[in-house]
Parts: sequence; C-alpha cells; structure tokens
Amino acid sequence: MKVSIIGVTGYSGLELLRYIQQHPFIELMSIHSQKVNKKSIAAMFPHVSNLVDLPLEAIDAQKIMAISDLVFLATPSGHSKELALPFLEAGFPVIDLSGDFRLKEPGIYEKWYGHTPPPDVYLQQFEYGLAEARKHPSAKWIANPGCYATAAELTFLPLFQQKLIQWDTIIIDAKSGLSGAGKQLTESSHFVEAHDNMTLYKMNSHQHIPEIVQLFQTVEPQVNTIQFSTSLIPVSRGIFLTAYAKLTESLSEAALWALYQDFYQANYFVRIQNQGTYPNLKQVVGTNFCDIGLAFNEATQIVTLVTTIDNLGKGAAGQAIQNLNLMAGYEETAGLTNAPLYP
Amino acid sequence: MKVSIIGVTGYSGLELLRYIQQHPFIELMSIHSQKVNKKSIAAMFPHVSNLVDLPLEAIDAQKIMAISDLVFLATPSGHSKELALPFLEAGFPVIDLSGDFRLKEPGIYEKWYGHTPPPDVYLQQFEYGLAEARKHPSAKWIANPGCYATAAELTFLPLFQQKLIQWDTIIIDAKSGLSGAGKQLTESSHFVEAHDNMTLYKMNSHQHIPEIVQLFQTVEPQVNTIQFSTSLIPVSRGIFLTAYAKLTESLSEAALWALYQDFYQANYFVRIQNQGTYPNLKQVVGTNFCDIGLAFNEATQIVTLVTTIDNLGKGAAGQAIQNLNLMAGYEETAGLTNAPLYP
Amino acid sequence: MKVSIIGVTGYSGLELLRYIQQHPFIELMSIHSQKVNKKSIAAMFPHVSNLVDLPLEAIDAQKIMAISDLVFLATPSGHSKELALPFLEAGFPVIDLSGDFRLKEPGIYEKWYGHTPPPDVYLQQFEYGLAEARKHPSAKWIANPGCYATAAELTFLPLFQQKLIQWDTIIIDAKSGLSGAGKQLTESSHFVEAHDNMTLYKMNSHQHIPEIVQLFQTVEPQVNTIQFSTSLIPVSRGIFLTAYAKLTESLSEAALWALYQDFYQANYFVRIQNQGTYPNLKQVVGTNFCDIGLAFNEATQIVTLVTTIDNLGKGAAGQAIQNLNLMAGYEETAGLTNAPLYP
Amino acid sequence: MKVSIIGVTGYSGLELLRYIQQHPFIELMSIHSQKVNKKSIAAMFPHVSNLVDLPLEAIDAQKIMAISDLVFLATPSGHSKELALPFLEAGFPVIDLSGDFRLKEPGIYEKWYGHTPPPDVYLQQFEYGLAEARKHPSAKWIANPGCYATAAELTFLPLFQQKLIQWDTIIIDAKSGLSGAGKQLTESSHFVEAHDNMTLYKMNSHQHIPEIVQLFQTVEPQVNTIQFSTSLIPVSRGIFLTAYAKLTESLSEAALWALYQDFYQANYFVRIQNQGTYPNLKQVVGTNFCDIGLAFNEATQIVTLVTTIDNLGKGAAGQAIQNLNLMAGYEETAGLTNAPLYP
Repeated sequence: MKVSIIGVTGYSGLELLRYIQQHPFIELMSIHSQKVNKKSIAAMFPHVSNLVDLPLEAIDAQKIMAISDLVFLATPSGHSKELALPFLEAGFPVIDLSGDFRLKEPGIYEKWYGHTPPPDVYLQQFEYGLAEARKHPSAKWIANPGCYATAAELTFLPLFQQKLIQWDTIIIDAKSGLSGAGKQLTESSHFVEAHDNMTLYKMNSHQHIPEIVQLFQTVEPQVNTIQFSTSLIPVSRGIFLTAYAKLTESLSEAALWALYQDFYQANYFVRIQNQGTYPNLKQVVGTNFCDIGLAFNEATQIVTLVTTIDNLGKGAAGQAIQNLNLMAGYEETAGLTNAPLYP
Repeated sequence: MKVSIIGVTGYSGLELLRYIQQHPFIELMSIHSQKVNKKSIAAMFPHVSNLVDLPLEAIDAQKIMAISDLVFLATPSGHSKELALPFLEAGFPVIDLSGDFRLKEPGIYEKWYGHTPPPDVYLQQFEYGLAEARKHPSAKWIANPGCYATAAELTFLPLFQQKLIQWDTIIIDAKSGLSGAGKQLTESSHFVEAHDNMTLYKMNSHQHIPEIVQLFQTVEPQVNTIQFSTSLIPVSRGIFLTAYAKLTESLSEAALWALYQDFYQANYFVRIQNQGTYPNLKQVVGTNFCDIGLAFNEATQIVTLVTTIDNLGKGAAGQAIQNLNLMAGYEETAGLTNAPLYP
Repeated sequence: MKVSIIGVTGYSGLELLRYIQQHPFIELMSIHSQKVNKKSIAAMFPHVSNLVDLPLEAIDAQKIMAISDLVFLATPSGHSKELALPFLEAGFPVIDLSGDFRLKEPGIYEKWYGHTPPPDVYLQQFEYGLAEARKHPSAKWIANPGCYATAAELTFLPLFQQKLIQWDTIIIDAKSGLSGAGKQLTESSHFVEAHDNMTLYKMNSHQHIPEIVQLFQTVEPQVNTIQFSTSLIPVSRGIFLTAYAKLTESLSEAALWALYQDFYQANYFVRIQNQGTYPNLKQVVGTNFCDIGLAFNEATQIVTLVTTIDNLGKGAAGQAIQNLNLMAGYEETAGLTNAPLYP
Repeated sequence: MKVSIIGVTGYSGLELLRYIQQHPFIELMSIHSQKVNKKSIAAMFPHVSNLVDLPLEAIDAQKIMAISDLVFLATPSGHSKELALPFLEAGFPVIDLSGDFRLKEPGIYEKWYGHTPPPDVYLQQFEYGLAEARKHPSAKWIANPGCYATAAELTFLPLFQQKLIQWDTIIIDAKSGLSGAGKQLTESSHFVEAHDNMTLYKMNSHQHIPEIVQLFQTVEPQVNTIQFSTSLIPVSRGIFLTAYAKLTESLSEAALWALYQDFYQANYFVRIQNQGTYPNLKQVVGTNFCDIGLAFNEATQIVTLVTTIDNLGKGAAGQAIQNLNLMAGYEETAGLTNAPLYP
C-alpha cells in the first residue's frame, strides 16, 4: 500500500514515519507539511539520516491522490477537517489522527474543541478507530482515537460489556509524558518547569472526555460524564492511567482477572498483567501495546485498573498503522512487533 | 535547644541536618550512625563541607543525654524501638521519625511492620506528631508521621471534622519521588529502572495505611480501611497525592474551598490554592509546606483533592522540626521559612 | 540595607528573591518587572506564598531610589544598560547581573552582544564582580560575572597567577543545566528535546568568552582566545566544567593540589576537593559554592580541572549577594550559608 | 543463522534480544543466564510479552552447539573467558561483548582488568570487532569493542590514517548514560544520586583506555596513552564524547570536514554531521549509528570532535549484530535500520 503523510513534522507525524519506515507492506510516497523544505527531511531531523530520504513538500491533495492509496492526517484539530475535504470529496481513504471526526454530535464537538464541526455528511461516515472495538474493519475513513481515550476505553470496555460497572463511580486519574502536549512551546512544557516536577493540568475539562463518554454510551446509554483529571509527569512518552470504579456485583479479584484475560484473549496488543503485578511505562513506550493490571479491594469494593500505553504509539501512530492493517487486510500486527527499548 | 541526631546518614537524617544548620535556636551537638567515621561528616558528604564540621560518631545514648536536650531518631522502623529505649527509660525527649511508635495497637504494628512492638508503657505515651492536629504541644515523646500519612491526613481532616465524607468512597492515588524509598539500593531505585518511567509499587498494602486509618478513626470510628495505592515517579523528592471521595451532602466548589480555607487559616504550613489551580511538586520541595487544591464535580458528586508535600520536609524532617518548635515553645515557623528552589 | 529588584520574574531575579528572603541584614523593599501585576507576586509564583508578600510593580527608578539603598538589575543584556541610566546618573548603587557592563572595550561588547555599548563614562567605573578577585570591595557599581565565566575564571586563576599555564592549550568543555538558557521558550529548552538528551549548542561562540579572556589578560596579556564549547545536560541547574591545559613546567599532582588549596584558603566559597575526588552538581546546587577537583596526567603532562557551580547561585544571584556583602561591609558569607538539598 | 545468547538478563543481553527479534535472517534458538527460570523470559521482563517466548535456561555449551550456529557472550569481563572455553575448544563461532578477548598483550589485560588472561592460543585468534576497521570479515571469533572505545576510535581513525594528529594532545571528555554502568546496584547508579546530577567517575583510569591505545598503535606505534575521563549524565542510554587534539598541519574546517566525509563515505553507520552542527544523544539512541560533528579553532589550532553513539547499540549489541552480518555475508545493515524514537 502506498501512503502519504500530511503534518509529518509533529510528534505523531514523525512517529508515523518511524512505523512506516519499518513496515513490510507500506511504501511511503510523500511527506507534507506547512513547513516546506526542498531538502530531505533529514536536514531538519538528523535522526532519520540514511533512513528516510524524502523532501518535505507543501500540502498537495491532488498529487497525493495521484501517487498514493491513502493519506494520514497528523494535523491538529481544527486543521484536519479542512485538509481532509478534497480527499473526502474524492472518496479517497483517510486516517485522521486529530479530534475532528471522532464526535458524532456536532454540538459536542463545537463545545469541546471550539471549532465549527466538519460537514455532517462526512462526519457520520467516519469510523471511530479504537481498533479492538471496530465494527467495519474495511472502513475507508478512520477517526483515530485520542491517546487518553484509547487507554480509558480499553480499560473499562470489559466491565461495560458485562454490565458490571456503576458508571457514576468511575474515576480516571491520568498522567502523561510531555510529548502528549505536542511540539508547541508553552511554559508548561519548558524543561525547567516540567523536569523534577508533576503538575495537574486539566480537571474534568480534557477534550478527550466526550469521545470516551460517546464510546461508553454505545454499551451503557446512561453515562453522561466521568471524573477525569490529567497530569504531566517528567517523561517524554507514555500514559499511566489509574482508574477506579465500584461494581454492580461483588467479584473476586481472580474472577475479575479472568474476565479481562478472556475479553482480550484474541487481541495481541492488549496484555493483561499477571495478578498482583502492574504495568509500567517503559514496557510499552515505542510500541503499540496497551498493558493492563488490576486489583479488587474487598473491604471497599473498589476495583483499581492500571493501564499504560505509549501516547504516540497505541495512542496515535501505532494504532493508526493497526487501523491501516485492518483496512488493507494485512496481519493486524504487521510492522508493529518491535520490542521496546529496555532500559 | 541542644540536639543530637541518630541515623544522620539516611535521607531523613541528612535533611534534619540541613534544617538544624539553618535554625536560629537549635544547636547540633553530635551526630551518630552505625557507619562510624572519625573524620568530619563532610568527608562522606562533600555537600556540607564548610557548613557542618562534626565527626560521625558511634551511637552512644549516655553521651547524648549528657550533652543534648533532645534526640532525633532518623532510623528505620524496627531499629528505632530498640535505640529509643535508654532515652525512654531516662525520660529524655525523643522525636522518632520511624513508624515504630505511631500505632497504638501493638497487633496492628506487628501485622504491617512485621516486628514485635515496643513496650506498651512507652508506646501509649508517644504523641502522634501531625503538627496541625496535635493535642499536647509540650509532649516530650513524638512519633513523627509517615510522609504519605501526613499528606493524606491533612487532605481529609477538614471533611472528617465536618462529618461531610462518605468514608468508604475514599480513594487515594499517591505518587512519590525516589527518595521516599530511602537509601537502600534496590532494583526499583536503580536509575535506569526509575528514569523516564512510572511504576505502581504498593496496592492497598503500604504500611502508612494503618496510621491514616487510626487518625481518621479519632473523628469517624467506623473507618476501617481506605483505597490507597502508591507509585514512583521519576523525581528525587515530593509526594503528589490525588484523592477522591463522595460527600454526605452536596456542596458547591466555592463552599468546599471556603471550608478548607477556614480550617487551615491559622496553619502557616498548609496553603490552600486558589480555586481552579492545583499545586505542583516544585513549589513545596525543600520546604515544610503542604499545598492543597480542590475541585467538585457536580455531575458525579465527586470531590477531588490534590495535595503536594516534600516527603523529606513536611513528610519527615521539616515536620520533626515543627514538632520540636512546638515542644520548645518557639515560633512554629522557626527555621522553616526558606523559599524552595525555583526553578 | 534596603534593596529593590528589577527583573524579578526571570530565573536570576527569583533566585535573588530567595537569597534576600533568607538574608539577615537585607530588607527587600520592592520588586519590579515589565510584567506588572497589582497582586502579590505569590499569585504568579505560588512557591513564595506565605514567604514574600510584595506586589509586582512597574519599573520606577525614582521610587526605588526613594525607598532603597541599592538596586539589582536582573534583566537581560541590552536592557540593563538602558534601565541602569537613571541610577548611574544619580550615583545610586547598582549590581547588574547582565553582560552589559562587564566588557571594558566597547567594540568587543558590540561584537559579542550585538548592541551599542553603554556610555563609556559609566562603563569604566563598573567593577567586574568576580568576588574572589575584586580590587575595590566598596565599589558601588558592580558588573556581576556570567555563570560560565565565573566557573572558568576561578578554575584557572591560580595557574595564571603562578605563570604556570600555556594559555594556548586551554580547553574548556562546559555543560549547563537548562535554567542557564533562561525563561525564554525555545525549541532546545522544550522538555522532550532536552530530556534524556545532551546537545552541544555553542562552539567557540559563547558571549562569556570575551569576559574570561579579559580577566585572564589582567595576568597574562598575551591571551587572545580560548577553546570553549557549551553543552546542555538534562538538569535544571548547575554548571559542570571540565577544563584542560598544559603547564609551563611539570608539577606533581600533590603540588598542584597544594597550590589550589593555598590560593583559595581564605575563600569560603571555593572548596578544593580532596585529591582523587571530583565535585558533582548536586553538592553546589542551591548554594554559592564553587567546588574544584583536579588531576595531573604525567604521561601527557595535561592538567584536568573539574569545577561545579550553581549557574543561578555563584553564577548569578549568590555572587550578587556576596558582592553586596562586600560592598556593605557585612560578613562575606551573610545569607549564603544554607546547605544544598541532598538528595 | 541460528544463535544463542548467554547472559541475556544484562542490559547488553536484552539489547541483543531486541535486535535479533527484529532481524530478518537470524533465529534465536535459546537464551541462557545464571538466573535460571523455567518460565518464559517474559515473566521476568514483561516488556517482551507476546514478542519473545523462550525459557531462561541454565548455561549449557553442548546444547547450544547442538542447536545453534553461533553464541553471543553478553557476560561480564572475567566471566566470558571461562564461559567461552568449550566453544573455543570446539572451534564454534563466538561473539564476546566483554573485555576479555580485546587486548592482545596479556599483561595489559591483567593490569586493567585484574583477572588472569585467557589462554594465549585463543586470545590471538580473536578479531577486534570495530566493524568499520575489521580486517577479516569472516573471522569466527570476535571481541566486540567497548562502548567508549568504539566512539573514541571512530572519532580519531581518520586523523590517524592521514598522519595528521599530534597524539600527545589528544583529550577525550566522555559522558555516558547510566546503562553504561550495567545492572549492578551501586550508590552511583541509585536514582537520587544520578538524577539531576553529573559526576566524573574515572579520571585516566577507565579500562577502555588500553584497547583504544592498542588500536591507535596499529597506525601510530608511538601512542602510549591518552587523556581520558568519563562522567555520568542523567540519561538512560548514550555516549556523548567530546574530543580535542592539535594537528601536525593546519587545515581549514572545510578540509577537515571533507576528510571525514570521504573516510566514512562507504560506512552506512557513521554519519558525519553538516558543518556547524553537532550530534545529540537522541538521534542515535536505539540505533547502531555513530554520529560525528567537528570544528576547527583557527586561533588555537585545536580540532574539536563531537561523537554520539548508543552505548548498548553501536557500543555493544548493535555492533555485535553488525559483526555477525559481516561474518555471515549478510548485508551489513540487516536488522539494523530502524529509526530511533523521536522524541
């Protein structure tokens, strides 16, 4: 399959580049950015010298459709919906990594993102790309989920499916590395502010909340919000999500563990940890894995779930490649089986 | 006041040294350790060259009682209870930073610490040293609280006092820097394991749980446990505690904020953050402050509390000095008013 | 002594605030910035809540001269020379932390800083404030040295004074934490660029080179340049300088060590390390110390010197306080004797 | 090619596992360690769950020779020389990552490593595995170079080959991430000691010095030592080497750059940076690249070379795979073309 990337100079775009460069069946035809550069991308990003030798081109939908079979939009929310239009009008396959096509209700998009929503005719045809829960694997237009949303959804899906959860007790305490905040220069991403520090930055106001609620509503229509805070920890990559809930019935920890193990048995990228052990960030960074550990406190009847992903992997570029694999009919794991760096 | 430190080479001991060195009314007479060294302590710890010029001496209770007015035990649980005996027998003032004299019920101590408890006659005379809740400021024997315990207790005290809390909904998600794990060399404290990583290490099994429950029981006897997990984040110092609970009645966020502001008005070291802002680690590291921010989610009726302290400051040596100030009748803030490093 | 700070919101300004807040003889009368804020500075910098309660005022020279005895300019090069004028015209004491008044030759200032130099009549009256080498301790106008310059000068002064150095063999390999780059948001100071990374950023082109050369020329007029590179290491604070040179005569390592020990015997803030040991960053961060270790390689006849300082301490605010102490006739160490955080 | 690894639980062993797992032509038959574990290695190292499913076996040379074509020894110096014997006696291919077979003179090995040397009959048949300078690509016994040595040798080889270097002016200022110190628990690798710190740990005493000198002597027999210091910087991986020397004749920076560019033109893994730019750590970590930048100071006639490698990649496991590729006649780059993580 031949592909192009728009927005390649952002963190998700560069991570797509990395995954595609090692993918056995995908050929990268062109890379595009608003920061045009006639020279090879390696002049701007020396880490890909000798590995990728493509010029950084201006955004040109016609050229892309002429030479590629699919385009990745690794562009910010608010931009993707504009950049996608020529591709959508032509019926050309798109995987969008922004939040622009995830929310089916335009009013909710407008409320949380502050932009006018994309045309409804296209919006409704996008498939939400949580790979482990996709309904139309061959869908041509994919709204790739947000990083926090991916972790939160995979964490609670088994309990929702089994109708085991008291939804209004859900608490999600999410921590992210700094790459989650993107490349923009802000005070909170300045080294000396973030280093040796931890800061809570969004209390019940992160824009991933509505897509999480939307997904939970497909199973439990009553859900209308969740308790959800996000903090920055001094690492480059990785989401560490600790989540809590009360159940509708008491379960042993062993039964709970078996439930998760069964639910994700066929899903290569979700690794349920052994009982009594919890995932750390390093075991997923650089990969498309989502690792989940769990505990049940009999005294308080509270379930604790601990989930780690790479925000740029399973939370962005990795899952986008997984979605492409599904669309193209490749092995779901193609190009996604490298081990993480350890240490 | 003249003091000695036993266990000066551990992190809490060294932090006591730092606080005492800058205290206007305390004179450090001698420092002791199992690692005896005839030379100045600066030979082992060059950061105190030109600042502290005392030899590292063997532990000698008689000598200490001869030259000092009080002894700090900055020694591990299991050791303090032995080392304290000669001082207790002589009625000599002791501030113990370990867990040995915090729990009033010997069986609970034995269960959580795995040691035989100290003699009950002494145990019952120790005052639990949460400075903001002390009942006998002049008590001569102080069991200085644990670092997590200090943060958790200050976080929930106002709600307990006002009978506003549903105790079985309490969830404490605590993160600590690596100094909390002490000086012992372990795999989890190896640089490459902890750096760029986050790891949950104790799920409902941390030894500070019983002292938190013991304190909450003084207000609400029904409490018998709490949901409490502890994780390591890649910083040297600091506890970042996120805590959740449901209330017995609905409050506005403003009312909740006012409640905390009032409760801690007279307490210099507890700083309630402005509404909508949350404390970070750097604003407390190196100090005796405990900073608290809060939010109320009207949709889920969940209170979120965000608390930061320096585990070696308010969570250990800083609070020990505060307790000494109370005992000696000094200003509570004496020697504890330096600003943190920023950045 | 009553003082004001202009430029208090930068890193050096905030560090002055920290040192003054703990100084026994200095009273802080007012703080000024282009970022005016009617509220207390604690509203912008919560780490000083309960510690400093002054409003952030607009810059007003007349007011400062009315209420204070001295002004600190913690403002960037190019700005200080303008802001200083009203004080200079009035003969009012100034300690400037920028590079504007350090270089006696206006052409060299213009070449390295790219600004027109300040009026020569004032320039020549400023004393270069390397505290250990000051000639007029009571001088009223002080050009506080640069951070790299302070470390480099203290490193080589003993060898220059003894005419022992082949100046054209001097190599200085300097590494700095990110606070050295200041508060400005740049790509190189973005967390994910700097974290887990090391980058060389100025090769023989750092603006501290001419002030180092100027100082060396006072002893050895032939010096016209040095080999000097600067790199960023992922720490918040601290300069780690490794320096090399060949000598004019062969010395034993012991003799070399004795030479340094003697040279700095009367200087409290320069701590020569024991033979065979070298200083690290943590032992100086948060202090005004400059720690120096050395080695002599008999086979290659190369001296290696390893020097650490806190770029915001001895490299900026700490030395500024030390210079004020000299000017005011206080103990040189007043307000500068706190121990660093360890760990 | 079928291979086994002895010492798989160390950092180099795990990195071999990672490279082999993504290599197109190598099959991993068995993994061995003194820490035997009947279960899959994923039980001990959850980051390889779903990726590697081999049990951790006891060391068994006969079994390895029965099922594999080559063995990697990722074992410490002093152990490799014993573990290698059965393979050497049987003429079985070995790539040893320790220092045991690098030094041709037994006395020098004994002096720097403190062990008795391996039998001379085997020692002389080992080829020193600096891949870019290997003489017998098909050699069956490879002594894989040390991490610092690899960086230092590639840095200076072009100048030595052109007889341009004054060898006694060579100064190497090397900084390493903590994984270079291995998995052993030591005070200097304890998180709170290394984090936010920088420490010089070996002054002219690192055991890689003799192998660097040995290699330089093949071109310039006079070399008998070099100035070489090693420091720890707070990153997990990576060597950042800054090196200095004076030349035998004056060259323009452009001519110097051309010389390096030409010298390494045919070497995929050595990337000479554009003039005026210097490599950082992140652009090589996780890869087998060695990136080199350079400058020439006309005033002092000093060349500065800045070189970065991954100590576990080009400095250990990556180069071991490169050496295997040469031995097996594969493309030199097979299995070694993945991009580094960025950010």
